[in-house]
Amino acid sequence: QNHDSATPAKVQELTVYEINERDRSSPAYLRLSQKEVNHLGDLVPFSNKLYSGDLQKRLGITAGICVLIQHLPEKKGDRYEAIYSFYFGDYGHISVQGAYLTYQDSYLAVTGGSGIFEGVYGQVKLQQIVFPFKLFYTFYLKGIPDLPAELKWKHVEPSPTVEPSPAAKAAESHAAVPNFTN
Amino acid sequence: QNHDSATPAKVQELTVYEINERDRSSPAYLRLSQKEVNHLGDLVPFSNKLYSGDLQKRLGITAGICVLIQHLPEKKGDRYEAIYSFYFGDYGHISVQGAYLTYQDSYLAVTGGSGIFEGVYGQVKLQQIVFPFKLFYTFYLKGIPDLPAELKWKHVEPSPTVEPSPAAKAAESHAAVPNFTN
Amino acid sequence: QNHDSATPAKVQELTVYEINERDRSSPAYLRLSQKEVNHLGDLVPFSNKLYSGDLQKRLGITAGICVLIQHLPEKKGDRYEAIYSFYFGDYGHISVQGAYLTYQDSYLAVTGGSGIFEGVYGQVKLQQIVFPFKLFYTFYLKGIPDLPAELKWKHVEPSPTVEPSPAAKAAESHAAVPNFTN
Repeated sequence: QNHDSATPAKVQELTVYEINERDRSSPAYLRLSQKEVNHLGDLVPFSNKLYSGDLQKRLGITAGICVLIQHLPEKKGDRYEAIYSFYFGDYGHISVQGAYLTYQDSYLAVTGGSGIFEGVYGQVKLQQIVFPFKLFYTFYLKGIPDLPAELKWKHVEPSPTVEPSPAAKAAESHAAVPNFTN
Repeated sequence: QNHDSATPAKVQELTVYEINERDRSSPAYLRLSQKEVNHLGDLVPFSNKLYSGDLQKRLGITAGICVLIQHLPEKKGDRYEAIYSFYFGDYGHISVQGAYLTYQDSYLAVTGGSGIFEGVYGQVKLQQIVFPFKLFYTFYLKGIPDLPAELKWKHVEPSPTVEPSPAAKAAESHAAVPNFTN
Repeated sequence: QNHDSATPAKVQELTVYEINERDRSSPAYLRLSQKEVNHLGDLVPFSNKLYSGDLQKRLGITAGICVLIQHLPEKKGDRYEAIYSFYFGDYGHISVQGAYLTYQDSYLAVTGGSGIFEGVYGQVKLQQIVFPFKLFYTFYLKGIPDLPAELKWKHVEPSPTVEPSPAAKAAESHAAVPNFTN
């Protein structure tokens, strides 16, 4: 498509859940500021599990780093600069960058991808469900062919009680994408 | 637009000043190399204030990290790999990556954006005015609709003495973009 | 070109070798996890030399950071999230992000570039030849004009014994791009 021609580029939505099941030793909060409260200088490498928006399929993982920018006592939260990728097994990956605010939704930039996501651009909405264990993302993807049927689903509305299906949690073959990233 | 068709993509310029007013505890120089001079292994998270190129408006902040790559005694300077974003309040953000050389101008890649910068690509010229407190950037943006009038201005030529207007420094409502990032 | 129109975007291949000649104090393995084996929390800033795919020209350097995501004892290897750039002297740079697996090839996203690589997108295949000293990359580049003749070559097939030509190693002017990054 054309980025800014009269015909707008086609946007494809992709919804996923990122869930920290506390089995990956993540996050690693590196208190390099040596301050008692979160402070610029702290770094937070992390990697969580990735499920389809309908919670029926294990997709893969997230992987990357958050740079603590600011502790905001009045918001009881933090601003991070987040630089990470979403891995979808044999389908490839999507890289993103932008603000992760622990107290508010945000939009991050989609900076590129591989596999079926080669050449992707656009943005992604991050919604926090249960800090810092459960997040919901809506990708608005441009620049790529139609997503495969296996990556299309009706998402479950985000709420604190949502859980992946037992089959997806167990990554059974019918409940996981091919060679799901682990 | 088309990236490489016969019709070149439209380029929009956007000029901004990044100023370290020493009130954000930035940068956090993490001497993880444990060497006495700057050395590979050192990391530098940072966040500074962002003003319009005419210095009449507070826009937001920068946020990200510099990875020390090389100390160059003969240049009395350093090479960093810089990975960061520029935040423009309600307008969204632009992410960039590339070389930050303390002794020379450089061009970084625009890797993506959100809000009005969704789908952006191109490059940005970084000019150092007063190391490391005052920098001037010229973005060459492609892939996005026309910038709003509020983000168009005639920039003040970079010089060591430039300062934001008092109203912009105070982020008065007529001298700041909506919900300027802070 | 159009990202997803009927006419596929033109893809240009660019092959390079990244070689650690052990003269840049790289990598800096920061064992911030304080664990005895590689573990989430470890960070690895690095910078190596970059040669043309035919090993006849010094191009520049790589520069960036690897975030250790996972140690995989059964694979005798590690998963990193890699965020770095390739510098080509006066020609500019290419930024990439994605997985670096020490035991397997991978594809990373091309997130942007500068100079002749302004506006670039696509992906890059990473092949490990001699861990962690010799890597071969095939870029699949879109969105940019034709590469200059000086960046076109027939690559040498990757093997553990490949070495840059002595003239390229010495960065003699006929065996280096203009103002090769060092």
